[in-house]
Amino acid sequence: MNSTAAPSTMQIVPIQLDDRSYNIHIGGGLLTAPASFDGLPKAATALVVSNSVVAPLYLDKLLGVLRQRHATVHTVVLADGESTKTWDSLNQIFEGLLSKACDRKTVLYALGGGVVGDMTGFAAACYMRGVPFVQVPTTLLAQVDSSVGGKTAINHPLGKNMIGAFYQPLRVICDLDTLKTLPARELSAGLAEIIKYGPIVDMAFLDWVEANLDALMACDPEAMAFAVKRSCEIKADVVSQDEREGGLRAILNFGHTFGHAIEAGMGYGAWLHGEGVGCGMVMAAMLSQKMGLADQAFVERLTRIVKRAGLPTVAPVLDARDNAGRYMDLMRVDKKADAGQIQFILVDGKGKATVGPAPDAMVAEVINACCG
Amino acid sequence: MNSTAAPSTMQIVPIQLDDRSYNIHIGGGLLTAPASFDGLPKAATALVVSNSVVAPLYLDKLLGVLRQRHATVHTVVLADGESTKTWDSLNQIFEGLLSKACDRKTVLYALGGGVVGDMTGFAAACYMRGVPFVQVPTTLLAQVDSSVGGKTAINHPLGKNMIGAFYQPLRVICDLDTLKTLPARELSAGLAEIIKYGPIVDMAFLDWVEANLDALMACDPEAMAFAVKRSCEIKADVVSQDEREGGLRAILNFGHTFGHAIEAGMGYGAWLHGEGVGCGMVMAAMLSQKMGLADQAFVERLTRIVKRAGLPTVAPVLDARDNAGRYMDLMRVDKKADAGQIQFILVDGKGKATVGPAPDAMVAEVINACCG
Repeated sequence: MNSTAAPSTMQIVPIQLDDRSYNIHIGGGLLTAPASFDGLPKAATALVVSNSVVAPLYLDKLLGVLRQRHATVHTVVLADGESTKTWDSLNQIFEGLLSKACDRKTVLYALGGGVVGDMTGFAAACYMRGVPFVQVPTTLLAQVDSSVGGKTAINHPLGKNMIGAFYQPLRVICDLDTLKTLPARELSAGLAEIIKYGPIVDMAFLDWVEANLDALMACDPEAMAFAVKRSCEIKADVVSQDEREGGLRAILNFGHTFGHAIEAGMGYGAWLHGEGVGCGMVMAAMLSQKMGLADQAFVERLTRIVKRAGLPTVAPVLDARDNAGRYMDLMRVDKKADAGQIQFILVDGKGKATVGPAPDAMVAEVINACCG
Repeated sequence: MNSTAAPSTMQIVPIQLDDRSYNIHIGGGLLTAPASFDGLPKAATALVVSNSVVAPLYLDKLLGVLRQRHATVHTVVLADGESTKTWDSLNQIFEGLLSKACDRKTVLYALGGGVVGDMTGFAAACYMRGVPFVQVPTTLLAQVDSSVGGKTAINHPLGKNMIGAFYQPLRVICDLDTLKTLPARELSAGLAEIIKYGPIVDMAFLDWVEANLDALMACDPEAMAFAVKRSCEIKADVVSQDEREGGLRAILNFGHTFGHAIEAGMGYGAWLHGEGVGCGMVMAAMLSQKMGLADQAFVERLTRIVKRAGLPTVAPVLDARDNAGRYMDLMRVDKKADAGQIQFILVDGKGKATVGPAPDAMVAEVINACCG
């Protein structure tokens, strides 16, 4: 079916969502391989969204392939970082589209990390009420989590990812070679989401991650290929069962309730999303223990793995006078909150997660115990 | 099934869209009848969006019913008019929701005309990636067109309705009594969309509208009830076949290609949307004639009906030096445009519409002939 041979190492993980189904392509060198794009629409016009850090590294390479598919390829290069995930940046994409009179067959490509992917996806969801888009994630976090599953959003000054849409890409193209240029801190941030998948559904994967953490930190191609593929498989499985987060999908937010509070409380961009999730998993594990679900050994083990992955395990003080109160206030605007009650993802230390509330006093104890 | 008796005159038009199906309720006094809301979610929190003109008339009445269903009902009152259909106004809704920590079960109610409905619907589509919403249209245009079918959007300085979503309400509640307070100009604007339905699918309905136009202009309850119901039936039928405007649905835009250009060219709010559509239908009919699809008698008849409905039939000059060029430029950013080619809705004068391009010279002739 393919017009050119795919790189021999390419693996495909399907996401089953009826007429919104698509594939995740995983392998080295995919970004410059025309076969990676086979079967995608060849509209007259395309627009690539990237950021100021990724564009110098990969934009020309991607344009080289896309110009074989589209008569005109426009580009929008945004500033880097979570602090740019705003309406103003989103509007840069809309202006790029409208000023070039891009029609509704125009294909959008997201070339970058989670912020670029979330914003491009949301722009694609809204532009003329929906245009096709393709994810080309270049960070580990985006490859194993944010580019997969159709969650798109921007931040609002009053809350993270509060304005967005469920909108699926036509394909996700994970070029593992792009991870080689990733700063260590970003690699660690991605590892947080990889670590996450174990405790919520597959403890054998956590065992594997623990055993191969050094190889992953060294960006070993074979280890990385497996970690990305297994993460995508787990996410695909969960998302296929619950696309719009009616229930099950919420377990993917393990560590995110505390993590989002840290990110928002510190000001977006101060902590990377994955850093918030890493520390947040330690806090959620401790809460799970206090709730009688997990044992002390699991909490210690998870804390050790998070720390070894180069991630913070000590939470920041967000308010010197009422730190726990500040955390609670920030967590109450979480999307999972139900009638003002914060919902936590709790784990049993054996690969099973549940979603539910926890007593305020117990949550405060966890915050006090985890804050440096 | 209903816990209280519905007003005896209530009629229901269903919209069939799989798991997004819903009903349009049409009748007098529905706004204050608890039965109108039977079966909708009774979440702890609701938010009503209205505008500064409609709120003094109907907000308290609606709140009286909603407070029986929701423990807390917040309100956001926007400025009036198409010029407020912007990101800034949309953000007023988001701030209303976030500042009150509204969760994702919160039900949004749109109380007002097309602008309020479009913005509330888009806010509902985006807030936490989607919350439930109910349309309570209070203008004729909103009752017969914009509140039905799930098209939501805001305007962008570079184009009308360019940023939006397909997002269906849970119900549309058309209280015909609200039309009694409608200014004559707004009533005429609504008649434009009612007139539209005849030429595209049902000439018998155009005959009926022509015969009953005086009664409609006088807001006769019986005539209005039939006009709203028949308009909703036609729209429901088209939308059920093509929810996301892959093809057929575009015929509902008869008159809108020229109309949008007039609205944008004059500055949003100078011409009402329905006024642009009214004049746009005359222009589209004339183009249909030039294309050999409709005859002169049909163009004259439609022009006469549009004029009798109190709508403009002479188009404005948008640029003294290159008027046709300006119209073309504005029409090229239309969402229906395909690779820069403007797509027009053309009619045969016998109740059938087609979508396609037209020669620039012919379009320019129509613009020159129609401009005063």
